[in-house]
Amino acid sequence: MPTVDMSLERLRVYQGVNPRPADFDEYWDRALAEMNAIDPAPVFTPADVPSAIAECYHLTFRSTKGARIYARFVKPKNICGKVPALLMFHGLSGSCDSFCKMLNYASQGYVVAFLDSRGQGGLSEDVGGVSGTTYTTPFVRGLDGDPDGLLCRDLFLDTAMLARIVMGLDYVDETRVGATGGSQGGALTVACAALVPSIKLCAPIYPYLSDYRRVWDMDLDKGAYEGLRYYFRHFDPRHEREQEIFEKLGYIDIQFLAPRIRAKVLMPPV
Amino acid sequence: MPTVDMSLERLRVYQGVNPRPADFDEYWDRALAEMNAIDPAPVFTPADVPSAIAECYHLTFRSTKGARIYARFVKPKNICGKVPALLMFHGLSGSCDSFCKMLNYASQGYVVAFLDSRGQGGLSEDVGGVSGTTYTTPFVRGLDGDPDGLLCRDLFLDTAMLARIVMGLDYVDETRVGATGGSQGGALTVACAALVPSIKLCAPIYPYLSDYRRVWDMDLDKGAYEGLRYYFRHFDPRHEREQEIFEKLGYIDIQFLAPRIRAKVLMPPV
Repeated sequence: MPTVDMSLERLRVYQGVNPRPADFDEYWDRALAEMNAIDPAPVFTPADVPSAIAECYHLTFRSTKGARIYARFVKPKNICGKVPALLMFHGLSGSCDSFCKMLNYASQGYVVAFLDSRGQGGLSEDVGGVSGTTYTTPFVRGLDGDPDGLLCRDLFLDTAMLARIVMGLDYVDETRVGATGGSQGGALTVACAALVPSIKLCAPIYPYLSDYRRVWDMDLDKGAYEGLRYYFRHFDPRHEREQEIFEKLGYIDIQFLAPRIRAKVLMPPV
Repeated sequence: MPTVDMSLERLRVYQGVNPRPADFDEYWDRALAEMNAIDPAPVFTPADVPSAIAECYHLTFRSTKGARIYARFVKPKNICGKVPALLMFHGLSGSCDSFCKMLNYASQGYVVAFLDSRGQGGLSEDVGGVSGTTYTTPFVRGLDGDPDGLLCRDLFLDTAMLARIVMGLDYVDETRVGATGGSQGGALTVACAALVPSIKLCAPIYPYLSDYRRVWDMDLDKGAYEGLRYYFRHFDPRHEREQEIFEKLGYIDIQFLAPRIRAKVLMPPV
């Protein structure tokens, strides 16, 4: 494993090496159309959380592939008119924060919604049905089938569905919605702001799920990226389909979604 | 983590601590009935493997929950009458061995069938649809739903379906069928010999998937057992459902299947 990366000077102009699928925009336009055609039928169930300043809810809604998705939702008390909202996303394997941790933003007048990623440490449903292995990190799930079957496609769409639901609430100012999260949550922040360009502010923290080819070249195919090593060792040990595999991963590479973002972006230093 | 276990004397009489579900036998009788009602429709596709002594095939068949299962199948050439057969199972995350490695037994006159575990490093299909997380080790998949939905139930049934197919071949002596494998393959060996008591010989090597409660008590909830730690931390951090969870895992604990075995058992020293 290299202990140093390119020089800072080169990194500032580095544009990524993962191949971008030729039909990348059609892929996501089709995905968004599928998501928008779904009635999410959101259900807000009051949570038994005593707070002087906010009401807390368990939010469930229907998303792509029929999955029931869960989020925690906090709404400031005594809203007059419309308030801004913040969408939050967690890191790989985790789940949304406790209601308690969400009260800081609510105390400043924000509606807050924190999404559980499907199939991970929270309550959102992974309906399965992908082609190929389900053993390792989610980003390789579906790699053996049609790109529309990639698990991360639906994970990204869940963020857009959450934004759609929150922006549609009559007490939310849909022009003042932000998104944030770290690692996988950073990737989902980028995805959300890209798929919903009316998001106004986003703060992705060290975002994951990008430039898979560069991860491979740097021998960093471990930890959260171990799926790369696992997939190649088991399904393409001679790398005969290497270009095809990285290109398919390109559909769920946030570097190619990022140009869709219209929000003001803050990339906080670690 | 304890660095020593009980004394050898105590281990020789140790009978396990995981709770055994009261309806354990009904559970597996129902599962077997479901498996036996399925037409596996096996397809043997010749593999392009040159061998002087055997024919090699890709075997696919239908198993529970509609999954298409894959195995490698090797048949000695010039069979006269009926020959014995060996069923083989791989370790967690892996896949069946190469055809080349299966020729040793074929050269001694055995039919050999090596199963891919669904959703892992080979070609067998994990159809999904479990209740709860799909993030970590397979034995926790389905823990949030009905025990009939446990992924490992179907993984165990796949071994019995493979045995049923192989024993039904007109050139296989169904009274001379053995099973073997290490780690997860050892667990599947026990499961196969238990679910198909007409298996004559079995050699489970350091079998996995047993006595989950003891794994927890010994702080060994890591590596192949990390799902225990992950599940409790995310879904029952206060262990309010501990008894229920270990009892549900009891359905897929091979110590409770083992008494069904009628085969001669060899537990090779490591």
